[in-house]
Amino acid sequence: MSDFTPADPNFERRIRGSFAKKGIMSHIGAEMSEVGPGSCEIRLPYGEHLSQQHGFFHGGVVATIADSAAGYAGFSLMPADAGVLTVEFKINLMALARGELLIARGKVLRPGRTLTVSHANVYVVHEGRERACAILQQTLMTITGRSDVVG
Amino acid sequence: MSDFTPADPNFERRIRGSFAKKGIMSHIGAEMSEVGPGSCEIRLPYGEHLSQQHGFFHGGVVATIADSAAGYAGFSLMPADAGVLTVEFKINLMALARGELLIARGKVLRPGRTLTVSHANVYVVHEGRERACAILQQTLMTITGRSDVVG
Amino acid sequence: MSDFTPADPNFERRIRGSFAKKGIMSHIGAEMSEVGPGSCEIRLPYGEHLSQQHGFFHGGVVATIADSAAGYAGFSLMPADAGVLTVEFKINLMALARGELLIARGKVLRPGRTLTVSHANVYVVHEGRERACAILQQTLMTITGRSDVVG
Amino acid sequence: MSDFTPADPNFERRIRGSFAKKGIMSHIGAEMSEVGPGSCEIRLPYGEHLSQQHGFFHGGVVATIADSAAGYAGFSLMPADAGVLTVEFKINLMALARGELLIARGKVLRPGRTLTVSHANVYVVHEGRERACAILQQTLMTITGRSDVVG
Repeated sequence: MSDFTPADPNFERRIRGSFAKKGIMSHIGAEMSEVGPGSCEIRLPYGEHLSQQHGFFHGGVVATIADSAAGYAGFSLMPADAGVLTVEFKINLMALARGELLIARGKVLRPGRTLTVSHANVYVVHEGRERACAILQQTLMTITGRSDVVG
Repeated sequence: MSDFTPADPNFERRIRGSFAKKGIMSHIGAEMSEVGPGSCEIRLPYGEHLSQQHGFFHGGVVATIADSAAGYAGFSLMPADAGVLTVEFKINLMALARGELLIARGKVLRPGRTLTVSHANVYVVHEGRERACAILQQTLMTITGRSDVVG
Repeated sequence: MSDFTPADPNFERRIRGSFAKKGIMSHIGAEMSEVGPGSCEIRLPYGEHLSQQHGFFHGGVVATIADSAAGYAGFSLMPADAGVLTVEFKINLMALARGELLIARGKVLRPGRTLTVSHANVYVVHEGRERACAILQQTLMTITGRSDVVG
Repeated sequence: MSDFTPADPNFERRIRGSFAKKGIMSHIGAEMSEVGPGSCEIRLPYGEHLSQQHGFFHGGVVATIADSAAGYAGFSLMPADAGVLTVEFKINLMALARGELLIARGKVLRPGRTLTVSHANVYVVHEGRERACAILQQTLMTITGRSDVVG
């Protein structure tokens, strides 16, 4: 199903462990719904604390989970002792994120020894219907020898 | 000091009112420290809930306040009855955001009737020293006739 | 095959006419190999005048044809009397563009009355093998009432 | 005047030599008007072959010289035996580039051992008046040990 072979066969445990340590993810209520070699899905139910105003997810929140989904997709392919840094990302907010649930699906476009290019599609679910609301393109850097710093 | 003349002389009250309504900003602890015609500064003290891991602000949090600072800089120049949408942004995370305080300074590069191009520099303050950690480039859209939706 | 219905049934003639008028496209030797509703393909054979150095297409050239392919994809869905402007784009150059032929395939992600979000994948063909070398994400603006200026 | 000290004291000769080897630069008529430690200016007089249509520089051409100016700004700070790759860039085309001359001014925002973040402002000169028309943000990678490939 995936085009990629992970360097670390235990990547899922590593990825889920890293996600659990990130304060911002639990603080906003995000959960990692799926992770595979080169892919990751993050879900975030709506709450007033995430709002731009009533009923709409804030653009910064959309960017945060899109960045994380694409970043963990890339991180899944990295060696067990590596850390990951987001070098940069670009996001187009294509539609207002109005709904009950936000879903970000990240995937790797090109893995590399030093740099990885990833991508995320974000959907908002409103009254049971899923609609694309944002698209993100991202560059990641593999950090070796100091994974404690950035993992 | 500013190059811009705001269409709405009461822009500061309007901008601060909009900021106060955004759930995510108070949820993470951000405050609007300054706003002028075409400029805006947002400050965010460190907390565990914002962390990537101990002592580092999460990249998504850096992006969220950079997007807001640049967005409010643009919004300050828009007419009183207009709303604002972030069309897209791109951020380079140039250094790890390690410190006690994050400061995002947004400014308008080019205001337009429909589209505005804005920019933000983000600094992290660590042991009293301010250091650049991110730079953001952004496109905003002025929304007229339905400001209730996006203001 | 396409998800989109063009506003202008004669879009292909309009798109090809616009392409033919662009000095830079013929100057570098680019040709429009395909155009459909919401999609466009541009091909560019290698030449020394396009080089970064021997055998590699220059990154700016890769960006130029990617921007054009995504832009014409968007333009194909616009009304007959509209013009199009590239508001912004972001490109990741994922691999060195070494080969005999460059192919940019643009498609629309989200068409809109004012703004359209498009995308392009760029491939380089080397010894008969096609390889992804760049990915572009773009925002376009529909211009009405002065199509002579930007068409 | 500059904030940066180049690793290679002969950077100017190296930069100008690299520029001279790029087929695309001479093909379109661009010249390197200035180069300093961490900065570079490229000028391009108008010609029909650069046009989007009569009198306007094509967006891809604007991007090409902006990418080059920012890239050479970064390259100027790299070691004598290093090569440079553009990892990605993002450009906002803020105004139509109508005029007789295009000027791209690149500068380094943050140099790094592996990655460098650069920036360019592009101006168009029309009837003697200089006007900002584009802004670019870019990530570069320093390549060591195979400078012949990418220099």
